Amino acid sequence: MTPKVARYLAEMEPATPCLVMDVDRVEQNYARLKAALPLARIYYAVKANPAAPILERLVGLGSFFDAASFQEVEMCLDAGAAGERVSYGNTIKKERDIAAAYARGVRMFAFDSEAELLKLARSAPGARVYCRILVGNDGAEWPLSRKFGCEVEMARKLMVQASELGLDAFGLSFHVGSQQVKTAAYEAAIAKVAMLFTDLAEAGVKVRMVNLGGGYPVRYKSEVPEIGAFGDAIMGAMTKHFGNALPEIVIEPGRFLVADAGVVQSEVVLVSRKGEDDPVRWVYLDIGRFGGLAETEGEAIKYGFRTPHDGAEEGPVTIAGPTCDSTDTLYEKSNYRLPLALRDGDKVELLATGAYVTTYASQKFNGFAPLNEIYI
Amino acid sequence: MTPKVARYLAEMEPATPCLVMDVDRVEQNYARLKAALPLARIYYAVKANPAAPILERLVGLGSFFDAASFQEVEMCLDAGAAGERVSYGNTIKKERDIAAAYARGVRMFAFDSEAELLKLARSAPGARVYCRILVGNDGAEWPLSRKFGCEVEMARKLMVQASELGLDAFGLSFHVGSQQVKTAAYEAAIAKVAMLFTDLAEAGVKVRMVNLGGGYPVRYKSEVPEIGAFGDAIMGAMTKHFGNALPEIVIEPGRFLVADAGVVQSEVVLVSRKGEDDPVRWVYLDIGRFGGLAETEGEAIKYGFRTPHDGAEEGPVTIAGPTCDSTDTLYEKSNYRLPLALRDGDKVELLATGAYVTTYASQKFNGFAPLNEIYI
Repeated sequence: MTPKVARYLAEMEPATPCLVMDVDRVEQNYARLKAALPLARIYYAVKANPAAPILERLVGLGSFFDAASFQEVEMCLDAGAAGERVSYGNTIKKERDIAAAYARGVRMFAFDSEAELLKLARSAPGARVYCRILVGNDGAEWPLSRKFGCEVEMARKLMVQASELGLDAFGLSFHVGSQQVKTAAYEAAIAKVAMLFTDLAEAGVKVRMVNLGGGYPVRYKSEVPEIGAFGDAIMGAMTKHFGNALPEIVIEPGRFLVADAGVVQSEVVLVSRKGEDDPVRWVYLDIGRFGGLAETEGEAIKYGFRTPHDGAEEGPVTIAGPTCDSTDTLYEKSNYRLPLALRDGDKVELLATGAYVTTYASQKFNGFAPLNEIYI
Repeated sequence: MTPKVARYLAEMEPATPCLVMDVDRVEQNYARLKAALPLARIYYAVKANPAAPILERLVGLGSFFDAASFQEVEMCLDAGAAGERVSYGNTIKKERDIAAAYARGVRMFAFDSEAELLKLARSAPGARVYCRILVGNDGAEWPLSRKFGCEVEMARKLMVQASELGLDAFGLSFHVGSQQVKTAAYEAAIAKVAMLFTDLAEAGVKVRMVNLGGGYPVRYKSEVPEIGAFGDAIMGAMTKHFGNALPEIVIEPGRFLVADAGVVQSEVVLVSRKGEDDPVRWVYLDIGRFGGLAETEGEAIKYGFRTPHDGAEEGPVTIAGPTCDSTDTLYEKSNYRLPLALRDGDKVELLATGAYVTTYASQKFNGFAPLNEIYI
């Protein structure tokens, strides 16, 4: 938690549940990433947190943007971004949304299928397009399965077809999974992309861009490698495979830029046991999986906690949200421990919750309104 | 899909994604449930769908209400329900929410722990309280784990304590899990409750109510037993264990009353394959797990589909939502098949989606607004 956030919570005592976010920290993270990958163009993955103060700050820093929907395209434009700085990176788009983005100046689009390519040819004529290929997600705490991307052989054919359709067959992309803690995942994917570059050049299609996606990890409960290690591994692999003919490098960080800038504060609603001799207490918070903490599904993302009793004796806990739904349980198997002194009414903080929280919040499950958002 | 919903979709062509709901069907389901369990008092589980037209219709029918939060209490009151017809059934409540509900006339509250009981004694003096006990959820498609309820021995002590604290130790409750397809689950739970009734009577606490919770199943993709089978099993078990001294019987149906009254209509955004020889197509809809279909988590609830090509040749599909999140995949392992003729732009209907959909919808994940809701 940054000192600014800590001070705000202490002085303002905002109603819970709330997210308090230090926008200066986003700027620092942007600078750290720039330093680690100076040759890469940063497209902020807006879906991680689309709040206007974040987008506006990043516009001021010269960032580019990766939008998942036409609504996110509009958020970027509203924040002052030029259309040509926005990539429409979702491979699943309604054709009328493609047309609407194109009309607003967007000129870069992702695809991974022939049907999507035909939509782009019709509704974004001449635009830069890039094909997403399937790569391994081993090492990712929030992996991406086969939903996005296509096999390399299909990508090769589609890129040739893109060119024939009058589109600019601009690049290739992949995504190694979010919260990826292994640098080798990027190295393997770059090798795969490089071979496809060569194949396409032989087919007469001159690809000029590699989009490395996101995935750069953030420190939650456990340590992760420094961003410098990812920068070194990525540039090492790029140089090994492309030599001096480096293509344009695009990265799409989301979590890395915003996660540790934010803290969710929550009130403890109840601490109880299921039987008198039960060693495990249940701690119920006023935010849960349907209040925004969706990435705790399967206990994938393990947030760190702060409580007013830190340092005092701890015991094992199951941590759950406030709704009448059992799936609204955050951590049951991850061996969380919290102070024995914890009581209902206590405020606790969930650390590094600036990414992938606010937008997930259900509109009104069990009648609960989404969390408050405060940007300072 | 009821004829009224089918006619509305054909004539009005509402923007997708949307839920269209036939409120008359809710009334018919209420009557069916009344017929199956004439001695039970129906407390509608508001969380299943809190839309005002539904609450108002149920108020008119004389229904009681089970609220999960103070906000849901207010929705009931706004719809015209009297405070004494509302039960605050969540065992996890902020004390100020208990006080607020009490101030609005609510006189029935659930609990399953000493800490919660103490809050009730302070902030809802003299109210009727009922203790939720843990029972098996075997046979439920949406089970409830150990998040709610306590062990029987603890419940016994807490009910005695409730009485000592000046509360009305009114009842005992359990929940066999949602979409429960086995009548035996209720029979086993009733036997457990009946023994506790006897124990408490010996301890001088005269309990007068059994709350059987909800769980009554709805037909999704597969057949389920008729509601009459549940009514017979429940009343058989009640009579067996309580004889002529039947306590007041409370049931908390949610899904059963509203699910099959509603249909979600969605637009197909993309149909694609990951490789040219891939036998499985991916069908991407404009609604997914974060647009309201949260109960497809783990492919637990299997909705039925209707398409414009029904009857034509089908093939295997994976069905996914529109967001840049792989967990936003509805069905990958459940052997869904859809017509080979299905194309982007087609409208498909997800049947029996009137329960546990609208409120789950994320406020803006990936920039997508929650689905439209239409009550007719």
